[in-house]
Amino acid sequence: MPSFRETEIIEALQESTRASPENVILGIGDDAAVTKIEPGYQVVTATDVIAAGSHYPEGIDAQAIGHRSLAVNLSDIAAMGATPVWANLIFSVPVIKKDWVDKFILGFSSLANANNVALIGGDTIRGPEFFAVSLQGIVADNQYVSRAGAQLGDSIYVSGFLGDASHGREIIEKNRIAEVNASLVKKFLYPTPRMEQAKELNQIASSMIDLSDGLYSDLGKILSESNKGARIDVSKLPISETLTHLLGREKSIEKALIGGDDYELCFTVPKIRQNEFDLLTQSIQETKYTYIGEIMRENELKLLDQEDEYKLSGNPYSHF
Amino acid sequence: MPSFRETEIIEALQESTRASPENVILGIGDDAAVTKIEPGYQVVTATDVIAAGSHYPEGIDAQAIGHRSLAVNLSDIAAMGATPVWANLIFSVPVIKKDWVDKFILGFSSLANANNVALIGGDTIRGPEFFAVSLQGIVADNQYVSRAGAQLGDSIYVSGFLGDASHGREIIEKNRIAEVNASLVKKFLYPTPRMEQAKELNQIASSMIDLSDGLYSDLGKILSESNKGARIDVSKLPISETLTHLLGREKSIEKALIGGDDYELCFTVPKIRQNEFDLLTQSIQETKYTYIGEIMRENELKLLDQEDEYKLSGNPYSHF
Repeated sequence: MPSFRETEIIEALQESTRASPENVILGIGDDAAVTKIEPGYQVVTATDVIAAGSHYPEGIDAQAIGHRSLAVNLSDIAAMGATPVWANLIFSVPVIKKDWVDKFILGFSSLANANNVALIGGDTIRGPEFFAVSLQGIVADNQYVSRAGAQLGDSIYVSGFLGDASHGREIIEKNRIAEVNASLVKKFLYPTPRMEQAKELNQIASSMIDLSDGLYSDLGKILSESNKGARIDVSKLPISETLTHLLGREKSIEKALIGGDDYELCFTVPKIRQNEFDLLTQSIQETKYTYIGEIMRENELKLLDQEDEYKLSGNPYSHF
Repeated sequence: MPSFRETEIIEALQESTRASPENVILGIGDDAAVTKIEPGYQVVTATDVIAAGSHYPEGIDAQAIGHRSLAVNLSDIAAMGATPVWANLIFSVPVIKKDWVDKFILGFSSLANANNVALIGGDTIRGPEFFAVSLQGIVADNQYVSRAGAQLGDSIYVSGFLGDASHGREIIEKNRIAEVNASLVKKFLYPTPRMEQAKELNQIASSMIDLSDGLYSDLGKILSESNKGARIDVSKLPISETLTHLLGREKSIEKALIGGDDYELCFTVPKIRQNEFDLLTQSIQETKYTYIGEIMRENELKLLDQEDEYKLSGNPYSHF
């Protein structure tokens, strides 16, 4: 079969994602889907679009695009401390090629299956290359973690390494992929939304956000919503050896602050939860959390390099 | 202010739609929205996109486009016998002009407010003109009306008039709008999803669908999902005097069967519910329901013109 009919793409995607009969009453194939929420839970909905050229370079592997369309939404659900359950997909490509669609489906469904997410609806159009997902999850009543809960004196942490993905994208765009930078390219193409970590942090973090626009901008959103400021020490930022080796210290720090596309979590831990958090980080070895600074009273995001003031050479968008 | 920043469009839309604080725990402005489902209800989700050129002619009034983006999804929720509550919008235009966006917001929010729908999320991109909505509603546990419930001998009904909207679109595309056909043009530009009717029919209809692709195709979906056939009498089809006057009998019937864009309801009433349905139609004067035929055993959709076989001159997509 050389090509799919448009209506068949969503069906093929549904077949590739595991059904969840216990919470999907009626899936794809009717006017709308019907799903069941257990008592004691609230619904959490994230709706993000990715478009070729702006959210990712044109021409990258379709498997990475399928992965990305779901990953950016999973990351939003993670940042609420919630569990994803049901996805709806709007799929738009100018020409439908079976090989390409098969790869997209592989990328989307692998990540969906790994997270027990069922595809319950969607729509397909012929148009420019973009993919929009509306992802629904659940969280125990009022146990979600918003951006607005940071308090004076809370410690600020991030997961993983920052800046790798941003430089990975630059490498792809400049078409300079080599063995030495393959890990950065992969970090951009296959971001790993921090689903397990989000659940661990649900009872500990006072505020949380996922890093899509870059730490400086996204931490700014926590500060703005919480009506607080912060002081962070750029010498503490988790930067991979590979990135430092390729870019040097100053450019690596800049990537970590304003590069974007990390899809790591940034969150605040209140003093009364610090012991609990320390126990968590001791018990799990696989997740790297790094302390980077502290919530302050003044409405500004102050950058330090150990004791000295640090001046950002780039020009990030400020939320203040 | 000459133009919106992209991020401001969703916020302006949210401000124009009424808040529903009792069921929106956390609205726009965080990583995801949080909503509350009362015990005894299920979630119903419809996700449809409209794109300039394919779903509507380019250049029509932005108010009609804002209305349409929500209306097509409301119509899907109606066809499930459900009540819409929360909307998520993906908004894409190549250039952001304030006047245009204001009109879009007026069209979207007027319809949202009339139906108590809260905007809880969305995303904005610069790109070709398209709008995708993921709309969530509620229905009492297992009280939704699917396409699969039609039984042998059930009567088939449609709401409103068929074919007007399709010819209205043709008039717009040919740029021949006149006083004599203004009602058809309006029927296309401002479809009225049948929300109240859907709730009335929730306990009566054995199957239901909304008419977006045209009666012949959409009734075919009911038959396919229910594994049944049907016989309908084209002489009974509800066709407006205006349409008959403009097109003549045969072309009007064709528009009613395969024109599309009606956003009326097509549903089946079992014999044991007929009295209940008759009482309903007597008590409410404002809704026109028309009997058009009956569910049969054989897996085909047979068209009659009173006693004679009726041959469709157009070539609709068949679901058999």
